[in-house]
This record gives sequence, C-alpha cells and structure tokens, in this order.
Amino acid sequence: MAKTNTGRFFEDYRLGETLHHAVPRTVSGGERALYHMLYPARHALYSSDQFAKNSGLPASPLDDLIAFHIVFGKTVPDVSLNAVANLGYAQGRWLAPVWPGDTLRSQSEVIGLKQNSNGKSGVVYVRTTGVNQRDETVLDYVRWVMVRKRDLDAPAPETVIPDLPKALTPDQLMVPTGLDFSNYDFTLAGEPHRWGDYEIGEQIDHVDGVTIEEAEHMMATRLWQNTAKVHFDTSARPDGSRLIYGGHVISMARALSFNGLANAQMVAGLNGGAHANPCLSGDTVRAWSEVLDKAETSAPGVGAIRLRLVATKGGDPFALRGADGKYLPDVLLDLDYWALMPL
Amino acid sequence: MAKTNTGRFFEDYRLGETLHHAVPRTVSGGERALYHMLYPARHALYSSDQFAKNSGLPASPLDDLIAFHIVFGKTVPDVSLNAVANLGYAQGRWLAPVWPGDTLRSQSEVIGLKQNSNGKSGVVYVRTTGVNQRDETVLDYVRWVMVRKRDLDAPAPETVIPDLPKALTPDQLMVPTGLDFSNYDFTLAGEPHRWGDYEIGEQIDHVDGVTIEEAEHMMATRLWQNTAKVHFDTSARPDGSRLIYGGHVISMARALSFNGLANAQMVAGLNGGAHANPCLSGDTVRAWSEVLDKAETSAPGVGAIRLRLVATKGGDPFALRGADGKYLPDVLLDLDYWALMPL
Amino acid sequence: MAKTNTGRFFEDYRLGETLHHAVPRTVSGGERALYHMLYPARHALYSSDQFAKNSGLPASPLDDLIAFHIVFGKTVPDVSLNAVANLGYAQGRWLAPVWPGDTLRSQSEVIGLKQNSNGKSGVVYVRTTGVNQRDETVLDYVRWVMVRKRDLDAPAPETVIPDLPKALTPDQLMVPTGLDFSNYDFTLAGEPHRWGDYEIGEQIDHVDGVTIEEAEHMMATRLWQNTAKVHFDTSARPDGSRLIYGGHVISMARALSFNGLANAQMVAGLNGGAHANPCLSGDTVRAWSEVLDKAETSAPGVGAIRLRLVATKGGDPFALRGADGKYLPDVLLDLDYWALMPL
Repeated sequence: MAKTNTGRFFEDYRLGETLHHAVPRTVSGGERALYHMLYPARHALYSSDQFAKNSGLPASPLDDLIAFHIVFGKTVPDVSLNAVANLGYAQGRWLAPVWPGDTLRSQSEVIGLKQNSNGKSGVVYVRTTGVNQRDETVLDYVRWVMVRKRDLDAPAPETVIPDLPKALTPDQLMVPTGLDFSNYDFTLAGEPHRWGDYEIGEQIDHVDGVTIEEAEHMMATRLWQNTAKVHFDTSARPDGSRLIYGGHVISMARALSFNGLANAQMVAGLNGGAHANPCLSGDTVRAWSEVLDKAETSAPGVGAIRLRLVATKGGDPFALRGADGKYLPDVLLDLDYWALMPL
Repeated sequence: MAKTNTGRFFEDYRLGETLHHAVPRTVSGGERALYHMLYPARHALYSSDQFAKNSGLPASPLDDLIAFHIVFGKTVPDVSLNAVANLGYAQGRWLAPVWPGDTLRSQSEVIGLKQNSNGKSGVVYVRTTGVNQRDETVLDYVRWVMVRKRDLDAPAPETVIPDLPKALTPDQLMVPTGLDFSNYDFTLAGEPHRWGDYEIGEQIDHVDGVTIEEAEHMMATRLWQNTAKVHFDTSARPDGSRLIYGGHVISMARALSFNGLANAQMVAGLNGGAHANPCLSGDTVRAWSEVLDKAETSAPGVGAIRLRLVATKGGDPFALRGADGKYLPDVLLDLDYWALMPL
Repeated sequence: MAKTNTGRFFEDYRLGETLHHAVPRTVSGGERALYHMLYPARHALYSSDQFAKNSGLPASPLDDLIAFHIVFGKTVPDVSLNAVANLGYAQGRWLAPVWPGDTLRSQSEVIGLKQNSNGKSGVVYVRTTGVNQRDETVLDYVRWVMVRKRDLDAPAPETVIPDLPKALTPDQLMVPTGLDFSNYDFTLAGEPHRWGDYEIGEQIDHVDGVTIEEAEHMMATRLWQNTAKVHFDTSARPDGSRLIYGGHVISMARALSFNGLANAQMVAGLNGGAHANPCLSGDTVRAWSEVLDKAETSAPGVGAIRLRLVATKGGDPFALRGADGKYLPDVLLDLDYWALMPL
C-alpha cells in the first residue's frame, strides 16, 4: 500500500518549495501525427516543414498545445491528484518551440496558499515550468487548484495570494527566434485575413462542431501522461461518467478556431482560462472567438492578437454568461490567449 | 461571420480555373504507424524497410492510400464543403511514392461543369494533383461531385463534360523508379500467389470483417485534415448519425483484401469508384475482389492487375447489383483499380 | 476461395517444423507515441531519451511489450487463427532492445503436440523467436494453444510435451548491453522505491482503473497486425461481443502497475501467464502485483525482481482464486514476469 502514490493534500504544500515532476518525455513525429488525428488541427506552421521554413523556422515545431499538455500532464500526480477543481491559469508564456526529438520535463514552484474558510480544502498556486533537454524553458504558466485536506486538523498555512495580472502585456510575449511572416503565403495557410483585418471587439463564429467520443478523449489524455482518475475510470464518479480533461476541450476549440482564424498561427501567451462546465462524451463541441486586443511585435511581419476562445456544447454563439453573471450551462471553456499572426 | 469559410457553391466554379488548396502537410513515421493502427494493413512493402529495399526501393514508402487521403483531404474546403454527393473518380495515377519527411500540397483544375436540370445544383469535375516539396507530382486523379447553388438565379455555365475513359491503359501506369520484384520473398509477404496465378474473372472473398466505431473513423478522417461536417457533427444530419468518410471504407476494404491479395502490393491506378451506400458506425465491413484485367510492365518481375474491390456491410459475397441494375443496399463501395504484383 | 488463408488446423502441424511468419515490420517514433496513447505507460526509460542515456543506453528503446506484441501478432495467421484457447506462455526472454528504425520479423518452431482425448482438437506448443534486421534475436518465448482439427479422422501425432520450467532462473535473464542504474534518478522516475525496498511476498494494489472502449482495443490490436477475427468482427461470436486481445490487457495492467512499481523499468523475462477470463469493452481494468522473487544481476546497480501481475475487472485486490482453486470471475490476467530495477 505504502508504495502507491496517493497524491499530495493541501497541508502537504509549502510556500516556495519546488516540485520536480516525474517522467521526462521525448517527442517525435509520432506525437505530431497523433495531434492531427485527435484534433481538426490545420494551422500550416505546425503541419508543414516547408511552410515553417518559409516563416524563418528551421522546421515545423510541435503544436504549442502539445507542449502545454505534456508539461501540464507531468504536474498531475503532484498537484491535482486530490484536486476538487482546476480554478484558473495565468501568465502562461511559450518561450521556445518544441521540436521532434526534444525531451521535456517540468517542475512547479508553490507560489501561493490559501486555506478555504470551511477548513476542508485550500487553494494552491503553482508556477509550472517546462524545460527541454538543453535546459531551455519552453513554457511557464501559473495554475491554481483547489485541493482537499487529508487531515482536517492540520493547521492553516499563512495565506499568500500571488499578484497575477489579468493579461500578459505584449512586451512579455516571446516571438520564436527567426520568425518572419514577411513572405507569408496566405493561400497555403487557408485564409486571406491578416492581422490588420481583425478589429478589437470582433466576434467570430467558427461554425464547425465535433461530437466527442470516450475513446478519443482518453487517448488524448493518456498521450500526455495525465493520470487523473476521473478521465479514465467510470467508477471514479458517482454517475459513472468520465470527465473529459479540460485540455482536450482547449485543443478541440483551438483547432476548430482555424475556420476564421487560420492565420493566428502560434500561441504565445495564456492570459487566463476557466473550464466553465464539465464536458462529457457525446457533447458536440463548437467554438467562437472574440478579439480582445492587438499589438505589434519586433519580429518582421509578425503581429500579436489577444483572443477570447469560447468552447460550447450548444446554445447561441457569443452567449457567455447569464443575467446572474455566471457562465451559461452550455459554455465549456473561456480562454484568453495571445497568438502571433502575419501583419 | 465574414471570416469563416462557407465553401464554394456551384456558380463559383469557372472552367479552367485552378484551385490552390491550403495547408501543406509533412508526413513522418507517425502517419505510417497510425495507418497500421486504423486499418488491418499488412502489405509488406509498406510495413518493412527491408522488404522495400529488397524490392529495389530506398525504404518503405507510405501507403499509397495515405497519399490519396492527404491530397483528397485538402480539396474538401474548396470542392466538397457544399457537395450533395461524391459522384465518381477516374484516371487516378500514383506517379511517385511518398516518403517520411515529404511535404504534400494539392491543387485542382476545374475541367467540367454541368448544371442539373432542376437548376438547384450542378456537377463539378476537377482534376486534382498532389505535389511534394520537390514539385514532383505524386498523384493525380479526376473527381466529380454534385454541388449546390447558393443563388438559384445564377446563370448556368456552358456545359462541358470531360472525356473520361473507363480505365487507365496499362501503359499509363507509372511503376516507381527502381521497383524490382525479381527477388520477391513470398513467405515474408504472406501468400504464395503470384501474378500468373490470378485469372481474369476470378473472384476472391476476403473473408474477414471489421465492425466500425465512431472514434476510429473520425480519427482517420481528421488525420487527413478532411473537414467535412457530416463526418464529425451529430447535428449535421437529421438522423443524428455521422456519415463515414468514403475513403475510410476504401482503406478498410483494401486492407481486408490482403487476405487473398497479399501480393497486390502497390496501388498504381484508380480507374473508377462509387460509394454505393453510406457507411455508419456499427457496420461490419467486409470485402471481395474480382480480377478485371492483367498486363505486364517494363519493370523486372512486376505485373499489373486490374481489380474490382467491393466493400459490403453484409449480404452474399460477389452480390453487387439487384435486378433493377442498382447497387444492393449492403454494398458500400465499388472500386476499380490497378495494382502492381510480382510476376 | 483458394487464395484466402484459412489458417492451420491441428493436423497441419509437424513436430520440429519451423513456421516463417509473414509481414516484417519497421517501427519508428510513431509506434512509441501510439503506445503512450493507448496505455497509461509512464516508465521513464521508455519515455525519455535522456533518462535512457543516463542509464547507459544509446537512446530510449521501444517498450518491451511493443516487441512482444509485434512478434506475437505475426504468429496469429499461422498459429492461432483456428485456436480455441491461448493456454499459456513460458520461458520468454527479451534478448535485445528494439529501437526506432528496427525491422522485426518472427518465426516459430513446433516443439510439442498433444491431441485431446475428444479427438476434436489438440494442443500445439511453439517456441517463437523475434528477430531484427541485423538477425539478432530480440525476444523468444514458448506459447501453447488449443487448435481445432479440420479433419476429425486425421491421425493423432505422437504426443510430445516440452519440458517447461515454471520460471526462468535469474542467470537466464539478459540485461541489455550497457545498462547501468548507478546514476538512476528516482525523482524523474516517479517513485523512491528501489529494489531493496521490495520484499518477497509483498503485495501492491496499483489503485488506478481504466474503462476499456471498443475503438481502443481494436486499434491496439491492429497496430500489431494481429488479425484474429474475434477482436474485430461482432459477427464472429454468438453474443455479438468483441473479445479483447489478451495482450491489450497485459499492456494495460503493466502500465497501471507504474503506480507502486515505477522503477520496475524493463521487462526481462516472461515466466508464465494465463488469460483467466475474457475482457470486454466496458470493463474497468485494475491491477495488483505480488513480489515472487528477487535476484541480483551482473550489471551495475541493476537488480531483478520477479512479479506476479494480476489484472481484474473488479473484486477485491489480491483475490485470485476461489475455494475451488479456479480463477475468480473478475480476474482477467495472471502474469509472472521478471523486471529490472535499480538496486
């Protein structure tokens, strides 16, 4: 019994400690092919070496969300095995592309703790960092989760809530070395709309929908070595349903957003995100986006666009919250991110 | 709204225009592995580098149908998003193998147009060409689809129906450079039957069956970046079913045909094909073949065999059409192709 | 008809004959990625090139069970197409790692025959050998299956039952060239428990469960080119269910055993195994292990541990057999293997 990982409980976290997550992972063209199989992903930079070279990169990197899922997946046994809820993301930055052959590992620093008033759980804030085999940071982001206490009598730690700005400022975004959209081929990319064609406040209905199957979301979640029981085991929840990994919804929505945002090629920053309602097998996921901000970058031909990406399982596009200010029941995801686009 | 691709309607096509399809794709060993996961594919030339080298090739190419699916998938947003029916194929030729590391793109020339007498739709004929990163054509084929009109008042174009021979002549087939079956290992290939063992008119029941699941056909279809809504979205059809991509049935039937045609290694020509009835999840796909023709080639030890490949979801093997001349309801696919076999 | 493989029947086997199985297979990073998608596999040596290099290997090999499944799959058309039951395994040894780019083929020698007293079937014992493109044996093992007779009047062969020890002795295990666990990183591997921390007789409940889907087990089984009809065709069994390939359960249980045995990195020997009850879609697979034996090896820092790995679809952990000595109905698998662990 003692040999099995039961996960950490709220009282096991110490402010400032670093958790070194297990099981480094080497990626290859296999993971890239699988990503295209699991999601309707069509952004040309991640599909074609030639397109990537024409954009100043040595080859096509792996999708930015592959990096996110791999780095995130490693944190689950140490951070969210006993989590009640995944509360939020902030300050996520993609700092270097991931290439076939790279090996990723990840670590998290505990940057905030707050016991809930009920004394039964608390909120843990971690800054997670994904590192490649050259010790380069490829991604870092802040996540906070609500975690149960094992021992209700364990004393509450000092409350420390990190200061987390609502969004990255454009100067915080890292543009990959060499990226140059001056010779961008809009025909091959699939749409003519460039950075200048999008207006702040503009909303885009991505139209397409994908009905989700159990086999797909479990395979996607396993691929990133995410071990949370609720995704795999019908006996883990009272109603026998398997909860779909929130990252599966993120990738699905991002891939669906190709239709209208084909040129929002790279994900550069994650400002925030909420998994508004659970997604289950049989749900048909749709997506819409809203342009929140725009900025120039120092890279040739490269603009930054801040987007709200909303995934739904029905309802009207562009509907987000009810009169009570709460997310509507059909809203699955409300994500706020920065992408890089050709000017 | 304006940023989303609504697809072309019948009146949007002009005779002679070239459609440059989006999203080039680099393939790797990942796509090869996935093909073996999705289909019971066992042809040795596509499974083993050593077998391919022994056949005069530098390595094992990707399955010919991977090339077909990738080239075809790119045409969907421009050709068949508003298609009512996929009517036929003709004059398909595999002109060069696809290797791991290759990047494919595709384009289509409009070679025929005919408005239907009801004025609501028309038939569009395109010649689609798949090209690799060395600008070599790897595949070309003709396809015609029935496409809806957006504006019923749009004038009918001049009717032009291309002249499409029923089959490629053997001299039109391209044998890959270097292919040599003189040292062919029938034991490793799985069956002793060589080109000379097959007679024109011979029929083969491939015996095995595969029951199809939703997750599988959606993953297969996404893998080739085919975006047609009916394959993914249960709300796209009145009965809530997801229509299975016809190419999934082609690959399934071709893989099942290994049992009896293990040595029909390479697909060299596509003479024609009809998706006779829709395939849905839960159907058990079976296949039978008929030898239609045979020819020699100029390559050492290599013969060509013309095959009818029929996929069914039940019924008697070798049953194809009813007394009324129409396909029987259990027939899914009637494909006419040329393959290359050891003499 | 005559061209289709109907498989061998009991009377077709001759003692001492060698069956050269068809369809060699080249593997790549694609197969590795797929293995991580299909199973919750987390053993670090098979996940990270850096971890493998730190363990004295040139790179991360493919999972030992990939080698097993590929070698096994090739035997199906010649050994088990008409098998009534897969009766047992013995004397399995992993003799060399499999690397991306390797091509595997396999062959089996008939080492035993025993007609059943009912005269309708018999037991065939084969020693199967998997060989790579350098003619190195990567794996060999003994398997015995019950096979039907085609002709009930065919004479019974002389009964020969091979002498199969219950387990490999530690000196029979092959440690991969260069393997060195002296610098083993327990943090990256995921658990602190070393060889010395396990006691003979100790039992470990691996806690996690995975509910199995049809699409997943069929894809896994096809990936290894295993063609047995019962796994794919709902019409192959009277109740319309698809029987799950026993190897799928082995891989699932082994992957689940990470939780408590994260450092049992390499599978070196297969002493025996029984597929106690059939596994069907919808079953939730769990696993527990028992330490059967321990031994040192000549490699630096490397110990051997003999484990019973039991997969169940419910019931109490550690429950195996009923009062009648038979496997309990929830037990799916009882596997006996040797693994290599850091001292």
